[in-house]
Amino acid sequence: MTAVSDEGMWLLNDAPKQHLKDKYKFELTDPWLKNAMLGSVRLNSGGSGGFVSAEGLLVTNHHVAADALQKLSKEGQDLLRDGFYAEKRDAELKCPDLEINVLQEIVDVTKEVNAAVKPEMKPAEAFAARRAVMGKLEKDSLDKTGLRSDVVTLYNGGLYHLYKYKKYTDVRLVFAPEKAIASFGGDVDNFEYPRMNLDVAFFRAYENGAPAKTPNFFRWSDTGPAAGDLVFVTGHPGTTNRLETLAKLKHRRDLTLPYTLARLRTLEAALIQYSEQSGEKRRQAATDLHSAANARKAFSGQYQGLLDPKIMAQKKASERAVIDAAAQLKARALTIPGPTPPGWTEAFDNAMNGLEAVEAVQAKLRAFEKPYLLIETGHAFASPLFGIARHCVRAADELPKNSADRLREYRDSALDSLKFQLFSPAPIYPELERAKLTVSLTFLAEQLGGEHELVKLALAGKNPAARAEELIAGTKLFDPAERKKFIPDPGAPVQVGMRAVDLSTDPMIVLARTIDAEARRLRARYETEVEEPERQAYAQLAGVRFLVYGNTLAPDATFTLRLAFGTAQGYEVGGKNLNFHTTFGEAFEKHAELSGKEPFDLPKRWLDGKDKLDLKTPFNFVSTADTIGGNSGSPVLNRAGELIGVNFDRNRHGLVRNFVYTDVQARHIAVHSKSVLEALRKLYPAAPLVKELTGK
Amino acid sequence: MTAVSDEGMWLLNDAPKQHLKDKYKFELTDPWLKNAMLGSVRLNSGGSGGFVSAEGLLVTNHHVAADALQKLSKEGQDLLRDGFYAEKRDAELKCPDLEINVLQEIVDVTKEVNAAVKPEMKPAEAFAARRAVMGKLEKDSLDKTGLRSDVVTLYNGGLYHLYKYKKYTDVRLVFAPEKAIASFGGDVDNFEYPRMNLDVAFFRAYENGAPAKTPNFFRWSDTGPAAGDLVFVTGHPGTTNRLETLAKLKHRRDLTLPYTLARLRTLEAALIQYSEQSGEKRRQAATDLHSAANARKAFSGQYQGLLDPKIMAQKKASERAVIDAAAQLKARALTIPGPTPPGWTEAFDNAMNGLEAVEAVQAKLRAFEKPYLLIETGHAFASPLFGIARHCVRAADELPKNSADRLREYRDSALDSLKFQLFSPAPIYPELERAKLTVSLTFLAEQLGGEHELVKLALAGKNPAARAEELIAGTKLFDPAERKKFIPDPGAPVQVGMRAVDLSTDPMIVLARTIDAEARRLRARYETEVEEPERQAYAQLAGVRFLVYGNTLAPDATFTLRLAFGTAQGYEVGGKNLNFHTTFGEAFEKHAELSGKEPFDLPKRWLDGKDKLDLKTPFNFVSTADTIGGNSGSPVLNRAGELIGVNFDRNRHGLVRNFVYTDVQARHIAVHSKSVLEALRKLYPAAPLVKELTGK
Repeated sequence: MTAVSDEGMWLLNDAPKQHLKDKYKFELTDPWLKNAMLGSVRLNSGGSGGFVSAEGLLVTNHHVAADALQKLSKEGQDLLRDGFYAEKRDAELKCPDLEINVLQEIVDVTKEVNAAVKPEMKPAEAFAARRAVMGKLEKDSLDKTGLRSDVVTLYNGGLYHLYKYKKYTDVRLVFAPEKAIASFGGDVDNFEYPRMNLDVAFFRAYENGAPAKTPNFFRWSDTGPAAGDLVFVTGHPGTTNRLETLAKLKHRRDLTLPYTLARLRTLEAALIQYSEQSGEKRRQAATDLHSAANARKAFSGQYQGLLDPKIMAQKKASERAVIDAAAQLKARALTIPGPTPPGWTEAFDNAMNGLEAVEAVQAKLRAFEKPYLLIETGHAFASPLFGIARHCVRAADELPKNSADRLREYRDSALDSLKFQLFSPAPIYPELERAKLTVSLTFLAEQLGGEHELVKLALAGKNPAARAEELIAGTKLFDPAERKKFIPDPGAPVQVGMRAVDLSTDPMIVLARTIDAEARRLRARYETEVEEPERQAYAQLAGVRFLVYGNTLAPDATFTLRLAFGTAQGYEVGGKNLNFHTTFGEAFEKHAELSGKEPFDLPKRWLDGKDKLDLKTPFNFVSTADTIGGNSGSPVLNRAGELIGVNFDRNRHGLVRNFVYTDVQARHIAVHSKSVLEALRKLYPAAPLVKELTGK
Repeated sequence: MTAVSDEGMWLLNDAPKQHLKDKYKFELTDPWLKNAMLGSVRLNSGGSGGFVSAEGLLVTNHHVAADALQKLSKEGQDLLRDGFYAEKRDAELKCPDLEINVLQEIVDVTKEVNAAVKPEMKPAEAFAARRAVMGKLEKDSLDKTGLRSDVVTLYNGGLYHLYKYKKYTDVRLVFAPEKAIASFGGDVDNFEYPRMNLDVAFFRAYENGAPAKTPNFFRWSDTGPAAGDLVFVTGHPGTTNRLETLAKLKHRRDLTLPYTLARLRTLEAALIQYSEQSGEKRRQAATDLHSAANARKAFSGQYQGLLDPKIMAQKKASERAVIDAAAQLKARALTIPGPTPPGWTEAFDNAMNGLEAVEAVQAKLRAFEKPYLLIETGHAFASPLFGIARHCVRAADELPKNSADRLREYRDSALDSLKFQLFSPAPIYPELERAKLTVSLTFLAEQLGGEHELVKLALAGKNPAARAEELIAGTKLFDPAERKKFIPDPGAPVQVGMRAVDLSTDPMIVLARTIDAEARRLRARYETEVEEPERQAYAQLAGVRFLVYGNTLAPDATFTLRLAFGTAQGYEVGGKNLNFHTTFGEAFEKHAELSGKEPFDLPKRWLDGKDKLDLKTPFNFVSTADTIGGNSGSPVLNRAGELIGVNFDRNRHGLVRNFVYTDVQARHIAVHSKSVLEALRKLYPAAPLVKELTGK
């Protein structure tokens, strides 16, 4: 918001040390940062977490763990709903496809990446050259270190950093509470505050069949934060759009977001209808439904934000401020004595060119964004079975190439993780997939019209309902062994037309194969008309911003490790002051007030155990730290680097944080570290877990 | 489907007597038809019903009665959920704004209407001339008979008939069962079969404070239909599109329906979220939610139908058949001796011109259909408060004009009904209206983009959520007395700029006033570019069809009285034969199978009283008769004209009946007359009602 606000999801190799010192008298040391980096965890199901013991124990949100909980469940045994606890190590449940990454090192490779792209290159060449050099840097790092290595694009193209991760694919479930307390209030209270959610779950990382050694972890605080305390959040915020230009935001407002909202509503409606058919169907659809409802609510908040003239005026003003400052640099370059500082002369032109280039991209994107999202991103085929089929088809084309020439998701350094997902034995439910596919094929027709060639290609002479029925009834890709047949061995001879994918009559494979030429065409168009020009344009703008503001602006979120900070404090809404934390007692009050009707139904264990609990125990708390989706499960730390909470949500005032930071009412919400201990001690028979967390 | 099928929603003055004689050996007599006409009832809440005693007692569906039940309820007293029974007349509850119409006479006025429109008139003049002559015919009829008089457009402009209705505005609630049994299975089983729903409610029409005398009524059958029986349905089907051209259907498929589905999903999602917040909010939103969910499901079925290549091929073939037949008439006109029969020479040109004209209309409509629907139809302002505000604003402009020159809804013959609605004391809930308005204003922005002039006009510098807040917090139109201030007395002097609507600062009035010029412009454009040209084109096509097929095709549905017929018969689905009726026993089985979980939760009265019931009693039954939305509550009659059922739904195979009739699996679903008696006798303390129905 301002230079003195708590805005920013900071890079761990470029943390705001001076700001913290000035504002909070806090010395952010390198050892503190190193422990934060090595203790923080990214989950491939799309969230964050942190190690909380030296023996691989990690905490995240229940709603981040939901994907694994769902996959570990089956009819009659619903771990997502009912919870789980393994008192002994050998009872811990291995998750079928949960991978976690722990960042080990960051290397700036901006020069190497930019050097590969020559000014005279056309966008397609530039894109290929950039992809190739990124692939080579990653491959070299992987070969050298054995670490998962990803080149991360920062400032939308302003910087490139190489992130090296330690990877765990043997991750086991230790503890999860009942869903009714983990997400007490459900969709109704999602993005609201006050909240009373025990939104935590514990996993353990294993290596070679034994608990991983994790000497860098966060000590569990048994006091938690006091009002006004400085707090830190380390996690993996997914996406923000704060450095995007006004033209891009208008494109989002008028095209991408309305499309996205329409898509999510169709999916959510279908999932609700499916869930209502029976208890078992409800179980099957639980995580899909939560994801759709959560995304719908988040994007709705974003959309209201972009329709708010005050916010758009704010974005416009900050864009104008950059232009003005650049113009002043240019003017001063002419007047100051001595050599002109680098960039000053070009700053204004760069700013204007960058802004115009981004605007020009949106006009192009408008012409094909929907087909791109529907066909290449795959929104028209809302089933993991299609995703699997596409990987089978594309792997056959891509794997025989050199790693650097492949589509980026098939590069060598990403291949193990991809296969881990692709061959997952997690259950897939035919009826559920049919419902999702029906509605997404219907959405395809709604968006493009019944006579669009892509619609005809996808529907193959049937209506969406009949087509979905045919695809799901015919495909064998439910079985991981079937999928393996389509993935070529690296060294095997290839004869196009005779490969397993070419010969297959599996209808899902046939669909993925039939649509692939068009899908690739749309992708290439996106890469050359949107992605590469935007990178170049934003790189120009980033250059100007560095000149004008130095490193006082953090890059937009990229689902990589960031450090945020703020203070634990309540806020006022509608004339009412909300305390910075809630209590256990408030959960029982709300249950009573709403007659225990779902989603305000406390679990039996809680109702029965009410008398055992200290009802004044702080349950959830809020702080001003800057978070966004992807931060779910993030450790919240105090000055000492101890874990005082587990972030799990923002309030609705924070939904506009995709575009602007505000701390008037916007807050992130965390589970208080004390509430977890109190619940584990009093309600759950989880003494060994408490001992591991506290040593007591 | 074919000339020998049971297709058709027939006019009561042009019933298929010969067909019934040939196929079913049934003599459809004029007295039978007259009793059917005078016994059938249209409800202004959008459904059908029938008199079932000589003392004004009428039956309809519970879901048709829902609107009145909701309006008679309040916090803590939920008649919609819990049911109602007035054992004595003086306990019958007067509905705040329920009006029923009973058709008394039909007069063909096609010649009069067409004579007013001269070939040289431009569309706007033609539209005005047609509106004026219709208004005059209605006004003359009203003045002469005192009956509500409406000119009805049939065959999309092929015929015009004057319908004269007896009107009742004092309608009182007699009986309604619990919603849990009226719509057992809820949205899950809506448009499904087998069904076990007691979807009935009873009202009584009053005149001058006493029960109306209704000598024409339907005797309640205590046996109901047997398998294979010929059955009739008299009711008010709302809309079908069977005579629309392929170009029109493609427009519906690619524009209108995707828009409609997106709109309904946004509304339904908002209502679901609202309902989940508390029991009272759920009560407030119940009818709105049912309406949205029901419409979404119906339109989804239509959309799947129009995406079915087989159905589109069928429509194409039937269009081609008309052209071919017309070409043959033209050819034969040249060869037959003697004078050419009228119309033969022009038939082919008329057919081609008609088809081309309809196609040309769609190209124009495409350019402004969304703004038209959002602003003039009012989809952007999904609240009765906006509807009220608009009536206030427009009545001030329209009422001082001559009746024939007014917008059609303000013509003298419609004015009493309009005021009855407008001044209704039915409760309106601010929080609910705010939720609906937020989502519909958001939908407006989604559809037109954040910088569209109409969006800026509607949002007035706020985002949709803040704008809805401001409108609902500020308006006083909740109070009927406030509304009355804006409606001018017929004779009062008018000074534009000084009228109550001009001076008002009520934000809802200001919104309606501000948007009205644009709304009227869109309406005029729709009338002259779409409505009038389509009427003329369809009139040409109707003329050709009359020549080719005679009167073997019924007109599309128009929410006016029709007669359908068919046979009570089950059908096969997925290899399973479904009996033509279900039983009480099946309701209890389904309750048990789904653990009594909502919406499969039988009311306590039913669970407690199970032993009293004959579980073999037929509950619901299906027949092939041709129905559509609006037929809800229609009497189902046997050859003797006795009431054997109350229609309440179609199955999902019947959802395509908007476009094509099919009887392979498509069925309408009715409550069996016997089940109503059995339930009333055994479970409800309703002996007087049973006696009135049966005389016993």
